[in-house]
Amino acid sequence: MGIIYSDLAVSADGFATGIGQTEQSPFGDIDENWLHGWMFEATEENQAEVDAIVDSGATIMGRNMFGPIRGEWDRDWRGWWGPNPPYHGPVFVLTHFAHDPIEMEGGTTFHFVTGGPEAALELARATAGDRNISIAGGARTVNQFLALGVIDQLRLHVTPYLLGAGERVFDGLAAQPLERIAVRAASTVTHITYGPVRGR
Amino acid sequence: MGIIYSDLAVSADGFATGIGQTEQSPFGDIDENWLHGWMFEATEENQAEVDAIVDSGATIMGRNMFGPIRGEWDRDWRGWWGPNPPYHGPVFVLTHFAHDPIEMEGGTTFHFVTGGPEAALELARATAGDRNISIAGGARTVNQFLALGVIDQLRLHVTPYLLGAGERVFDGLAAQPLERIAVRAASTVTHITYGPVRGR
Repeated sequence: MGIIYSDLAVSADGFATGIGQTEQSPFGDIDENWLHGWMFEATEENQAEVDAIVDSGATIMGRNMFGPIRGEWDRDWRGWWGPNPPYHGPVFVLTHFAHDPIEMEGGTTFHFVTGGPEAALELARATAGDRNISIAGGARTVNQFLALGVIDQLRLHVTPYLLGAGERVFDGLAAQPLERIAVRAASTVTHITYGPVRGR
Repeated sequence: MGIIYSDLAVSADGFATGIGQTEQSPFGDIDENWLHGWMFEATEENQAEVDAIVDSGATIMGRNMFGPIRGEWDRDWRGWWGPNPPYHGPVFVLTHFAHDPIEMEGGTTFHFVTGGPEAALELARATAGDRNISIAGGARTVNQFLALGVIDQLRLHVTPYLLGAGERVFDGLAAQPLERIAVRAASTVTHITYGPVRGR
Protein backbone atom coordinates (compact mmCIF):
# COMPACT_ATOMS: atom_id res chain seq x y z
CA MET A 1 0.00 0.00 0.00
CA GLY A 2 1.24 3.44 -0.82
CA ILE A 3 1.07 6.55 1.30
CA ILE A 4 -0.85 9.77 0.88
CA TYR A 5 1.45 12.75 0.52
CA SER A 6 1.32 16.39 -0.29
CA ASP A 7 3.99 18.80 -1.47
CA LEU A 8 3.58 22.47 -0.71
CA ALA A 9 5.91 25.40 -1.20
CA VAL A 10 5.56 27.81 1.71
CA SER A 11 7.19 31.08 2.63
CA ALA A 12 9.25 31.49 5.79
CA ASP A 13 6.15 32.98 7.39
CA GLY A 14 4.04 29.96 6.46
CA PHE A 15 1.98 31.11 3.48
CA ALA A 16 1.30 28.85 0.50
CA THR A 17 -0.26 31.66 -1.56
CA GLY A 18 -0.28 35.45 -1.53
CA ILE A 19 -3.49 37.44 -1.31
CA GLY A 20 -5.67 38.59 -4.17
CA GLN A 21 -5.90 35.34 -6.12
CA THR A 22 -7.42 35.82 -9.57
CA GLU A 23 -7.82 33.69 -12.67
CA GLN A 24 -4.60 35.14 -14.04
CA SER A 25 -2.59 34.93 -10.83
CA PRO A 26 -3.54 31.72 -9.01
CA PHE A 27 -0.99 32.42 -6.28
CA GLY A 28 -2.19 35.98 -5.79
CA ASP A 29 -0.39 39.26 -5.88
CA ILE A 30 3.13 37.94 -5.33
CA ASP A 31 6.13 37.14 -7.45
CA GLU A 32 5.46 33.45 -7.94
CA ASN A 33 9.20 32.78 -7.89
CA TRP A 34 9.12 33.61 -4.19
CA LEU A 35 7.32 30.28 -3.71
CA HIS A 36 8.32 28.19 -6.72
CA GLY A 37 11.53 29.67 -8.11
CA TRP A 38 13.57 26.83 -6.61
CA MET A 39 11.79 24.37 -8.94
CA PHE A 40 12.82 26.26 -12.05
CA GLU A 41 16.00 28.12 -11.12
CA ALA A 42 17.76 25.29 -9.31
CA THR A 43 16.29 22.30 -11.08
CA GLU A 44 19.27 20.06 -10.77
CA GLU A 45 19.94 20.37 -7.07
CA ASN A 46 16.23 19.92 -6.34
CA GLN A 47 15.60 17.17 -8.89
CA ALA A 48 14.83 14.48 -6.32
CA GLU A 49 12.20 16.63 -4.61
CA VAL A 50 10.70 17.79 -7.91
CA ASP A 51 10.48 14.20 -9.21
CA ALA A 52 8.85 13.02 -5.99
CA ILE A 53 6.06 15.57 -6.37
CA VAL A 54 4.55 13.63 -9.28
CA ASP A 55 5.62 10.11 -8.27
CA SER A 56 2.08 8.97 -7.57
CA GLY A 57 -0.32 6.34 -8.82
CA ALA A 58 -3.22 8.79 -8.48
CA THR A 59 -3.44 12.52 -7.91
CA ILE A 60 -6.09 14.77 -6.38
CA MET A 61 -6.25 18.50 -6.96
CA GLY A 62 -8.61 21.38 -6.39
CA ARG A 63 -10.35 22.94 -9.32
CA ASN A 64 -8.35 26.17 -9.03
CA MET A 65 -5.15 24.22 -9.46
CA PHE A 66 -6.59 22.57 -12.55
CA GLY A 67 -7.46 25.84 -14.22
CA PRO A 68 -8.77 29.39 -14.10
CA ILE A 69 -12.42 28.63 -14.93
CA ARG A 70 -14.88 29.28 -12.10
CA GLY A 71 -18.53 28.24 -12.00
CA GLU A 72 -19.89 26.39 -15.06
CA TRP A 73 -17.39 24.93 -17.54
CA ASP A 74 -17.90 27.63 -20.18
CA ARG A 75 -14.90 26.89 -22.39
CA ASP A 76 -12.49 24.14 -23.28
CA TRP A 77 -9.72 23.80 -20.72
CA ARG A 78 -7.29 20.92 -20.41
CA GLY A 79 -5.03 22.04 -17.55
CA TRP A 80 -1.92 24.21 -17.36
CA TRP A 81 0.48 21.48 -18.37
CA GLY A 82 0.22 21.13 -22.17
CA PRO A 83 -0.74 17.95 -24.04
CA ASN A 84 1.42 15.64 -21.88
CA PRO A 85 0.98 16.55 -18.18
CA PRO A 86 3.52 15.31 -15.64
CA TYR A 87 1.04 13.10 -13.74
CA HIS A 88 0.93 10.07 -16.08
CA GLY A 89 -2.06 8.58 -14.31
CA PRO A 90 -5.52 9.47 -13.07
CA VAL A 91 -5.99 12.99 -11.70
CA PHE A 92 -9.15 13.61 -9.68
CA VAL A 93 -10.23 17.25 -9.86
CA LEU A 94 -12.55 18.47 -7.09
CA THR A 95 -15.39 20.54 -8.54
CA HIS A 96 -19.05 21.34 -8.01
CA PHE A 97 -19.67 21.13 -11.77
CA ALA A 98 -19.70 17.76 -13.51
CA HIS A 99 -17.48 17.30 -16.55
CA ASP A 100 -16.57 14.34 -18.74
CA PRO A 101 -13.10 12.87 -18.22
CA ILE A 102 -10.34 14.38 -20.33
CA GLU A 103 -7.76 11.96 -21.61
CA MET A 104 -4.33 13.44 -22.25
CA GLU A 105 -1.11 12.08 -23.69
CA GLY A 106 1.28 10.09 -21.52
CA GLY A 107 -1.35 8.37 -19.41
CA THR A 108 -2.85 11.38 -17.62
CA THR A 109 -6.65 11.44 -17.43
CA PHE A 110 -8.47 14.23 -15.65
CA HIS A 111 -11.58 12.98 -13.83
CA PHE A 112 -14.01 15.46 -12.31
CA VAL A 113 -15.36 14.59 -8.89
CA THR A 114 -18.40 16.37 -7.51
CA GLY A 115 -18.74 14.31 -4.31
CA GLY A 116 -16.10 16.10 -2.24
CA PRO A 117 -12.65 15.21 -0.91
CA GLU A 118 -13.60 11.87 0.61
CA ALA A 119 -15.19 10.68 -2.63
CA ALA A 120 -12.08 11.74 -4.52
CA LEU A 121 -9.89 9.85 -2.08
CA GLU A 122 -11.97 6.70 -2.49
CA LEU A 123 -11.54 6.91 -6.27
CA ALA A 124 -7.82 7.58 -5.92
CA ARG A 125 -7.42 4.58 -3.62
CA ALA A 126 -9.27 2.38 -6.10
CA THR A 127 -6.90 3.33 -8.92
CA ALA A 128 -3.50 3.94 -7.29
CA GLY A 129 -2.80 0.26 -6.68
CA ASP A 130 0.35 -0.07 -4.59
CA ARG A 131 1.56 3.41 -5.50
CA ASN A 132 1.29 6.63 -3.53
CA ILE A 133 -1.54 9.12 -3.73
CA SER A 134 -0.65 12.78 -4.15
CA ILE A 135 -2.77 15.67 -2.89
CA ALA A 136 -1.36 18.14 -5.35
CA GLY A 137 -2.94 21.42 -4.23
CA GLY A 138 -3.78 24.22 -4.04
CA ALA A 139 -3.30 25.27 -0.46
CA ARG A 140 -6.98 25.10 0.45
CA THR A 141 -7.32 21.59 -0.93
CA VAL A 142 -4.24 20.41 0.96
CA ASN A 143 -5.64 22.01 4.10
CA GLN A 144 -8.93 20.12 3.59
CA PHE A 145 -7.11 16.80 3.42
CA LEU A 146 -4.92 17.68 6.40
CA ALA A 147 -8.12 18.38 8.32
CA LEU A 148 -9.43 14.94 7.33
CA GLY A 149 -6.35 13.43 8.98
CA VAL A 150 -5.36 11.33 5.97
CA ILE A 151 -1.98 12.86 5.02
CA ASP A 152 0.94 10.55 5.83
CA GLN A 153 3.67 12.90 4.59
CA LEU A 154 3.49 16.65 4.27
CA ARG A 155 6.53 17.82 2.34
CA LEU A 156 7.09 21.51 2.91
CA HIS A 157 9.46 23.40 0.67
CA VAL A 158 10.24 26.46 2.78
CA THR A 159 11.47 29.48 0.85
CA PRO A 160 13.44 32.43 2.28
CA TYR A 161 10.75 35.05 1.77
CA LEU A 162 8.12 36.75 3.86
CA LEU A 163 4.79 37.06 2.05
CA GLY A 164 3.05 38.86 4.91
CA ALA A 165 -0.41 37.54 3.99
CA GLY A 166 -2.12 34.72 2.13
CA GLU A 167 -3.38 31.22 2.79
CA ARG A 168 -1.77 29.18 5.54
CA VAL A 169 -1.17 25.46 5.40
CA PHE A 170 -2.07 24.46 8.92
CA ASP A 171 -5.14 26.54 9.74
CA GLY A 172 -7.79 24.74 11.75
CA LEU A 173 -5.73 21.70 12.73
CA ALA A 174 -5.55 20.26 16.23
CA ALA A 175 -2.50 20.82 18.42
CA GLN A 176 -0.43 17.68 17.98
CA PRO A 177 3.06 16.26 17.73
CA LEU A 178 4.32 15.39 14.27
CA GLU A 179 7.20 13.28 13.14
CA ARG A 180 9.90 15.16 11.26
CA ILE A 181 10.67 12.52 8.64
CA ALA A 182 13.31 14.29 6.58
CA VAL A 183 15.14 17.59 6.17
CA ARG A 184 17.36 18.67 3.33
CA ALA A 185 18.74 22.16 2.84
CA ALA A 186 19.23 23.09 -0.79
CA SER A 187 20.92 26.40 -1.57
CA THR A 188 17.87 28.56 -0.90
CA VAL A 189 14.92 26.27 -0.15
CA THR A 190 14.66 24.06 2.93
CA HIS A 191 12.83 20.77 2.32
CA ILE A 192 11.13 19.50 5.48
CA THR A 193 8.89 16.42 5.53
CA TYR A 194 6.52 16.02 8.47
CA GLY A 195 4.82 12.78 9.39
CA PRO A 196 1.21 11.75 9.81
CA VAL A 197 -1.08 14.72 10.42
CA ARG A 198 -4.00 13.72 12.60
CA GLY A 199 -6.42 16.41 11.44
CA ARG A 200 -8.82 18.60 13.37
CA MET B 1 30.69 45.90 15.49
CA GLY B 2 28.45 43.06 16.51
CA ILE B 3 25.15 42.05 15.05
CA ILE B 4 21.67 42.08 16.52
CA TYR B 5 20.18 38.62 16.72
CA SER B 6 17.21 36.85 18.12
CA ASP B 7 16.59 33.20 18.92
CA LEU B 8 13.05 31.91 18.92
CA ALA B 9 11.66 28.40 19.22
CA VAL B 10 8.64 28.04 16.96
CA SER B 11 6.26 25.21 16.19
CA ALA B 12 5.92 23.76 12.69
CA ASP B 13 2.87 25.99 12.27
CA GLY B 14 4.81 29.10 13.23
CA PHE B 15 3.78 29.81 16.81
CA ALA B 16 6.24 31.01 19.45
CA THR B 17 3.73 30.65 22.29
CA GLY B 18 0.45 28.88 22.91
CA ILE B 19 -2.69 30.72 23.89
CA GLY B 20 -3.82 31.60 27.41
CA GLN B 21 -0.57 33.00 28.80
CA THR B 22 -0.70 33.49 32.54
CA GLU B 23 1.81 34.31 35.24
CA GLN B 24 2.28 30.63 35.88
CA SER B 25 2.47 29.55 32.25
CA PRO B 26 4.34 32.21 30.28
CA PHE B 27 4.06 30.15 27.09
CA GLY B 28 0.35 29.57 27.53
CA ASP B 29 -1.68 26.44 27.66
CA ILE B 30 0.80 24.10 25.96
CA ASP B 31 3.35 21.55 27.00
CA GLU B 32 6.38 23.83 27.05
CA ASN B 33 8.52 20.93 25.87
CA TRP B 34 6.77 21.21 22.53
CA LEU B 35 8.73 24.42 22.01
CA HIS B 36 11.78 24.08 24.24
CA GLY B 37 12.27 20.38 24.90
CA TRP B 38 15.19 20.23 22.45
CA MET B 39 17.18 22.55 24.75
CA PHE B 40 16.83 20.23 27.72
CA GLU B 41 16.33 16.77 26.26
CA ALA B 42 19.00 16.89 23.59
CA THR B 43 21.46 19.29 25.17
CA GLU B 44 24.58 17.86 23.67
CA GLU B 45 23.60 17.76 20.04
CA ASN B 46 22.19 21.30 20.33
CA GLN B 47 24.98 22.72 22.45
CA ALA B 48 26.28 25.12 19.78
CA GLU B 49 22.83 26.64 19.26
CA VAL B 50 22.11 26.81 22.98
CA ASP B 51 25.45 28.51 23.68
CA ALA B 52 24.89 31.02 20.88
CA ILE B 53 21.61 32.14 22.45
CA VAL B 54 23.44 33.88 25.30
CA ASP B 55 26.65 34.82 23.46
CA SER B 56 25.91 38.54 23.59
CA GLY B 57 27.52 41.67 25.00
CA ALA B 58 24.08 43.03 25.88
CA THR B 59 20.60 41.51 26.03
CA ILE B 60 17.12 42.97 25.68
CA MET B 61 13.99 41.23 26.91
CA GLY B 62 10.34 41.98 27.48
CA ARG B 63 9.07 42.22 31.00
CA ASN B 64 7.05 39.02 30.70
CA MET B 65 10.22 37.12 29.90
CA PHE B 66 11.87 38.61 32.98
CA GLY B 67 9.14 37.52 35.32
CA PRO B 68 5.49 36.99 36.15
CA ILE B 69 4.83 40.36 37.81
CA ARG B 70 2.44 42.65 35.92
CA GLY B 71 1.76 46.33 36.67
CA GLU B 72 3.62 47.87 39.63
CA TRP B 73 6.62 46.00 41.05
CA ASP B 74 4.82 44.70 44.13
CA ARG B 75 7.32 42.10 45.26
CA ASP B 76 10.96 41.18 44.99
CA TRP B 77 11.75 39.37 41.75
CA ARG B 78 15.18 38.70 40.33
CA GLY B 79 14.39 36.70 37.18
CA TRP B 80 13.77 33.02 36.50
CA TRP B 81 17.44 32.08 36.32
CA GLY B 82 18.66 31.83 39.92
CA PRO B 83 21.50 33.87 41.44
CA ASN B 84 23.84 33.49 38.41
CA PRO B 85 21.84 34.04 35.21
CA PRO B 86 23.29 32.88 31.87
CA TYR B 87 23.62 36.39 30.41
CA HIS B 88 26.82 37.55 32.15
CA GLY B 89 26.36 41.15 31.07
CA PRO B 90 23.76 43.92 31.00
CA VAL B 91 20.16 42.85 30.41
CA PHE B 92 17.71 45.62 29.48
CA VAL B 93 14.18 44.79 30.54
CA LEU B 94 11.37 46.64 28.76
CA THR B 95 8.77 47.86 31.25
CA HIS B 96 6.39 50.72 31.90
CA PHE B 97 7.34 50.74 35.58
CA ALA B 98 10.71 52.10 36.69
CA HIS B 99 12.89 49.89 38.88
CA ASP B 100 16.44 50.17 40.19
CA PRO B 101 19.03 47.95 38.50
CA ILE B 102 19.49 44.49 40.00
CA GLU B 103 23.03 43.23 40.11
CA MET B 104 23.39 39.45 40.01
CA GLU B 105 26.32 37.06 40.25
CA GLY B 106 28.47 36.33 37.21
CA GLY B 107 28.24 39.79 35.64
CA THR B 108 24.53 39.93 34.87
CA THR B 109 22.79 43.19 35.75
CA PHE B 110 19.12 43.74 35.04
CA HIS B 111 18.37 47.32 33.97
CA PHE B 112 14.79 48.48 33.61
CA VAL B 113 14.01 50.63 30.59
CA THR B 114 10.80 52.64 30.41
CA GLY B 115 11.56 54.46 27.13
CA GLY B 116 10.56 51.66 24.76
CA PRO B 117 12.44 49.33 22.38
CA GLU B 118 14.49 52.01 20.65
CA ALA B 119 15.73 53.41 23.96
CA ALA B 120 16.67 49.90 25.07
CA LEU B 121 18.54 49.34 21.82
CA GLU B 122 20.49 52.54 22.28
CA LEU B 123 21.53 51.46 25.77
CA ALA B 124 22.45 48.00 24.51
CA ARG B 125 24.57 49.48 21.74
CA ALA B 126 26.35 51.70 24.23
CA THR B 127 27.31 48.73 26.41
CA ALA B 128 27.79 45.80 24.01
CA GLY B 129 31.10 47.05 22.63
CA ASP B 130 32.15 44.86 19.71
CA ARG B 131 29.93 42.01 20.81
CA ASN B 132 26.49 41.01 19.58
CA ILE B 133 23.19 42.22 20.97
CA SER B 134 20.53 39.63 21.73
CA ILE B 135 16.80 40.27 21.60
CA ALA B 136 15.94 37.46 23.96
CA GLY B 137 12.13 37.43 23.87
CA GLY B 138 9.30 36.88 24.38
CA ALA B 139 7.62 36.53 21.02
CA ARG B 140 5.95 39.94 21.16
CA THR B 141 9.22 41.67 21.98
CA VAL B 142 11.02 39.90 19.14
CA ASN B 143 8.18 40.87 16.82
CA GLN B 144 8.55 44.53 17.90
CA PHE B 145 12.23 44.52 17.01
CA LEU B 146 11.59 42.70 13.73
CA ALA B 147 9.09 45.45 12.90
CA LEU B 148 11.78 48.06 13.64
CA GLY B 149 13.95 46.42 10.98
CA VAL B 150 16.99 46.06 13.22
CA ILE B 151 17.39 42.27 13.43
CA ASP B 152 20.39 40.98 11.47
CA GLN B 153 19.88 37.31 12.29
CA LEU B 154 16.66 35.59 13.25
CA ARG B 155 17.47 32.10 14.45
CA LEU B 156 14.38 29.95 14.35
CA HIS B 157 14.37 26.62 16.14
CA VAL B 158 11.50 24.83 14.42
CA THR B 159 9.97 22.00 16.42
CA PRO B 160 7.87 19.12 15.03
CA TYR B 161 4.61 20.10 16.67
CA LEU B 162 1.45 21.90 15.70
CA LEU B 163 0.25 24.32 18.37
CA GLY B 164 -2.82 25.43 16.44
CA ALA B 165 -2.92 28.89 18.05
CA GLY B 166 -0.71 31.40 19.81
CA GLU B 167 1.58 34.28 18.93
CA ARG B 168 3.26 34.32 15.55
CA VAL B 169 6.77 35.57 14.92
CA PHE B 170 6.29 37.42 11.67
CA ASP B 171 2.95 39.21 12.07
CA GLY B 172 2.82 42.69 10.60
CA LEU B 173 6.05 42.54 8.60
CA ALA B 174 6.39 43.65 5.00
CA ALA B 175 6.61 41.11 2.18
CA GLN B 176 10.32 40.76 1.52
CA PRO B 177 13.11 38.40 0.55
CA LEU B 178 15.35 37.15 3.35
CA GLU B 179 18.69 35.50 3.28
CA ARG B 180 18.75 31.96 4.62
CA ILE B 181 22.07 32.13 6.44
CA ALA B 182 22.24 28.65 7.96
CA VAL B 183 20.30 25.43 8.39
CA ARG B 184 21.09 22.53 10.65
CA ALA B 185 18.83 19.58 11.30
CA ALA B 186 19.22 18.12 14.76
CA SER B 187 17.33 14.95 15.59
CA THR B 188 13.97 16.64 16.17
CA VAL B 189 14.46 20.41 15.88
CA THR B 190 15.42 22.20 12.66
CA HIS B 191 17.63 25.26 13.20
CA ILE B 192 17.13 27.86 10.47
CA THR B 193 18.81 31.27 10.54
CA TYR B 194 17.33 34.00 8.34
CA GLY B 195 19.15 37.19 7.40
CA PRO B 196 18.36 40.85 7.84
CA VAL B 197 14.66 41.50 8.36
CA ARG B 198 13.69 44.85 6.92
CA GLY B 199 10.68 45.48 9.13
CA ARG B 200 7.23 46.78 8.31
